Amino acid sequence: MKRTALIGHLNDTHAHQTVTLQGWVNRRRDLGGLIFLELRDRSGLVQVQVEPDSPAFAEADRLRAEYVAEIEGTYQPRPEAQRKGGAADFEVIATRVRVLNTARTTPFELDKGDSVSEDIRMRYRYLDLRRPEMQRNLMLRSRAVAAVTAYLDREGFVQVETPMLTKSTPEGARDFLVPSRQNPGEFYALPQSPQLFKQMLMIAGYDRYYQLARCFRDEDLRADRQPDFTQLDMEMSFVEQDDVLAIQEGLMAHVFRETLGVELPVPFPHLPYFDAMNDYGSDKPDLRFDHKFVDVTDLFQGGEFKAFAEAQTVKVIAAPELTRKQIDELERVAKQNGARGLAWLKRDGDGFTGGVSKFVTAVAPELLARTGVGQGGTLLFAAGDWKKAVSALGAVRLALRDLFDLTAGGPQFHISWVTDFPQLEFDEDSGTWTYMHHPFTAPHPDDLALFGTDRQGEIRAQAYDLVLNGFEIGGGSVRIHDPAVQAQMFAAIGFSEEQARDKFGFFMDALEYGTPPHGGIAWGFDRLIMVMSGASSIREVIAFPKNNRGVDLMAQAPSPVDAAQLAEVGLEVALPANPVAMASE
Amino acid sequence: MKRTALIGHLNDTHAHQTVTLQGWVNRRRDLGGLIFLELRDRSGLVQVQVEPDSPAFAEADRLRAEYVAEIEGTYQPRPEAQRKGGAADFEVIATRVRVLNTARTTPFELDKGDSVSEDIRMRYRYLDLRRPEMQRNLMLRSRAVAAVTAYLDREGFVQVETPMLTKSTPEGARDFLVPSRQNPGEFYALPQSPQLFKQMLMIAGYDRYYQLARCFRDEDLRADRQPDFTQLDMEMSFVEQDDVLAIQEGLMAHVFRETLGVELPVPFPHLPYFDAMNDYGSDKPDLRFDHKFVDVTDLFQGGEFKAFAEAQTVKVIAAPELTRKQIDELERVAKQNGARGLAWLKRDGDGFTGGVSKFVTAVAPELLARTGVGQGGTLLFAAGDWKKAVSALGAVRLALRDLFDLTAGGPQFHISWVTDFPQLEFDEDSGTWTYMHHPFTAPHPDDLALFGTDRQGEIRAQAYDLVLNGFEIGGGSVRIHDPAVQAQMFAAIGFSEEQARDKFGFFMDALEYGTPPHGGIAWGFDRLIMVMSGASSIREVIAFPKNNRGVDLMAQAPSPVDAAQLAEVGLEVALPANPVAMASE
Repeated sequence: MKRTALIGHLNDTHAHQTVTLQGWVNRRRDLGGLIFLELRDRSGLVQVQVEPDSPAFAEADRLRAEYVAEIEGTYQPRPEAQRKGGAADFEVIATRVRVLNTARTTPFELDKGDSVSEDIRMRYRYLDLRRPEMQRNLMLRSRAVAAVTAYLDREGFVQVETPMLTKSTPEGARDFLVPSRQNPGEFYALPQSPQLFKQMLMIAGYDRYYQLARCFRDEDLRADRQPDFTQLDMEMSFVEQDDVLAIQEGLMAHVFRETLGVELPVPFPHLPYFDAMNDYGSDKPDLRFDHKFVDVTDLFQGGEFKAFAEAQTVKVIAAPELTRKQIDELERVAKQNGARGLAWLKRDGDGFTGGVSKFVTAVAPELLARTGVGQGGTLLFAAGDWKKAVSALGAVRLALRDLFDLTAGGPQFHISWVTDFPQLEFDEDSGTWTYMHHPFTAPHPDDLALFGTDRQGEIRAQAYDLVLNGFEIGGGSVRIHDPAVQAQMFAAIGFSEEQARDKFGFFMDALEYGTPPHGGIAWGFDRLIMVMSGASSIREVIAFPKNNRGVDLMAQAPSPVDAAQLAEVGLEVALPANPVAMASE
Repeated sequence: MKRTALIGHLNDTHAHQTVTLQGWVNRRRDLGGLIFLELRDRSGLVQVQVEPDSPAFAEADRLRAEYVAEIEGTYQPRPEAQRKGGAADFEVIATRVRVLNTARTTPFELDKGDSVSEDIRMRYRYLDLRRPEMQRNLMLRSRAVAAVTAYLDREGFVQVETPMLTKSTPEGARDFLVPSRQNPGEFYALPQSPQLFKQMLMIAGYDRYYQLARCFRDEDLRADRQPDFTQLDMEMSFVEQDDVLAIQEGLMAHVFRETLGVELPVPFPHLPYFDAMNDYGSDKPDLRFDHKFVDVTDLFQGGEFKAFAEAQTVKVIAAPELTRKQIDELERVAKQNGARGLAWLKRDGDGFTGGVSKFVTAVAPELLARTGVGQGGTLLFAAGDWKKAVSALGAVRLALRDLFDLTAGGPQFHISWVTDFPQLEFDEDSGTWTYMHHPFTAPHPDDLALFGTDRQGEIRAQAYDLVLNGFEIGGGSVRIHDPAVQAQMFAAIGFSEEQARDKFGFFMDALEYGTPPHGGIAWGFDRLIMVMSGASSIREVIAFPKNNRGVDLMAQAPSPVDAAQLAEVGLEVALPANPVAMASE
């Protein structure tokens, strides 16, 4: 039998018609001699009624939760009084029932999936994936893939698959290794990204490239990390930064429109890295709400309040009225993020009480004017080294967001560019300069003269991040296409020519054979879908994820293998005496 | 400067207009004081003329082959006499030239790429990929991806990404292993296919699934194999075989129409496995030409020609007139494919000469009538065990195709289904039964009673292959959804319950929780694009392939890694005394 339609696609036109449906028994109730079934497929639910004198009754009576059934019956409007509009206004009066398969009692109730331990959900992922929330997430993801493909194909982007068995790439995380049987003792690396290959495709003249690329990083895992993840990877030739951003805005708006019916305002606002940090304490600020920092460094300079007087930066954020307990919690957040403490004040009339109020008497009117803090409201201060102070206060800002649901009145989605990142960062630990994006990012042409000087920290990169609701969902740059600039960049980060050649020799060769100006971007596709779907973790938008020990609890991977299989690739296991210490490295 | 358009997109509407173009110098000639450049991008070529008194001349004079240039000029129709229709009727009279990048002299001339050793092409793949043939192949592939995505999205298929770091899958080739740092001494396997995961998605209620899936098999490589390759993987619930085939036909027709403008006639013809073997000696017959075998077993039964008289099967194929040398070559082919020899006859008047003619006098009229061989034409015979005889003659049939270009008059593409494969094959070497597709393929319901009997070789599988121009470009089956049938199947191939659980336990568990009837297919996407583009190897449709030693000559992968990096995953290299012997296993 063919089904009439997916359950969710039934509508008024099917009223009083005979329909055939196939799906899972979501629930069974027996009432007054009748059997009431909820039949579920990926598109929705429908109530099925089986009357005691129906020829379908005996077979229907076999049905239990999660059995697979085919049901033929009349698609019937419910009595007038029970109608609420929508699909639930109809039920099916069964005339024929077929059990297509039985099911064991599930280890957890699917509609209580939210309260089940994640380990159980992962072990029985095929059941967890039946939950409507998971189906909605994965179907959103699928529609986003189709929207991306259609848009980029139309815009002349060429989809190219880059190698999965390759050599180390420049991201600098740990590689996953793959031993080679044909070349024993040698290893492929799984790609951390297709960065070098996509640049090589530009050198090869492909002009516009995209790929939904599986990438691999052997890092310790967090809520929004997985050992393998998906990037929407793109690259364009003969472009400047603005050209890349314009295409991205069109694409992102298309994806939101096609999948969620949401219109994103374009162009997206631009926020230079310095402003993002200075005003919001983050290079990926959540701009669904404002709560911008107010700079009050000048008010305290040379004053009697030593902690502020000598600080490079004093920033303040105006919060609602806070309990002492809340302030303590926020101070903990500030300290976790590098502050030594969190000074505070409570507005009381035209002045302040509590916290550091005795130090601010002189500047109270100015503080009131600049912050506009409301009666009873709290001011929270971070003081010290600029980067540390703003970062700590940025974390406090997000904690306030969660505490007071500050995004409630704002837009559902806020997307912006963060631009003008520094090209180089000084790493205090190693005492060396390092790249901020990756070593192929082009510096701003006006700043080239700063390479090799003590001002190279001021070199601006032609790099940009795409920030959605406080998540970095994409990052990219214009790339270096001049071998001489590439050499300057390697020198700036302390790579000898030999080191550079050892790591990227084939790419440096390629650069010399006619490289067009080019640039691109990669979206963290899992993270984008997570934010779009409102999920709390990328594990909610990946069909079969690993847990934070890198384990697939369902398939039981990884697992030991035969010594013979290892011998084929020229390896043997050599565990240290204490493997636990090793694992926690 | 923004370019006006890609070169290939310029047309009559640009005539006499100022255009800006960007691309590579394909060729430079100096003639009569003028510079003639061919400028190339991925879409085409245009001739650029730079006059000696042009302000562009000095910069143009810097240009060499493969330099990157931006050229502004007038898009000018050529003199009437030189026009041939099409883009070559125009040239650009340059008014401004900018060198965007220089290029070293390339290690081979791009327009002689066909005659360069494959090693050189692979080492400089970024140059090889500039050749128009390669660009055409990869752009065809990209358009096919977009066509597939659009079609399947419209048909309600959900794109789902399955794990790359997983456990052994049932294809039975060698796995590539990935050591786990978080779980030292344990290994992930790279997927040989998403088979179990896609079936699990059906159990999870996703109804229709697809994915362009990267798959990995550690096999010794041939022209149409790569260690990592791409499958278009699909699965559907609540379907029977015909439902799967109908969707596939619609999809394939859509892909051919959108990419090549070719209309494939649907539905595709069906050929049962037995007929394909019996008539063409192949389970993937090239049907662009006929040359069907003629069965003449009965003509020789019990006769005096012992070699034929006692044979299970005697098949003959009618060929054009052949030289003795050609016959010897075809006999070599037959022997390579399991025949003991290749008997032949040449038609001469109403009889035969040469070869085995003295044995056929009695049956000559019947041979003439059945084969219809032309005057001077040759009959080629294979005799013996049915499978060996037809297989050998099938190879001869393909050799005749290549020798006489037999496909020339036929359709450019011939696509068909091969169906009704045997469920089980008897492996003479091991003396055991094994699966023909994989152990999850559903047997024909009418044949279930044959399991465990001495006739289990007659069980038909609900399996089907998609055959294009003699290449298997897809294969699939209806799957087992009944745990009891799955147990029968495991028993038939000699898997103990413990062995089955050890390999597929998580999947066998899943089967018991409400599995819908389902089936699917996977296309060998690389091979499909190879056949569509007319390329001779899948390496011509993969951007960065490995050679047949599994080596990426450009990136120099695989390569040795530090002992410290191996220690992190709990391994050390343990090469045998003679690594060469190992590698050639």
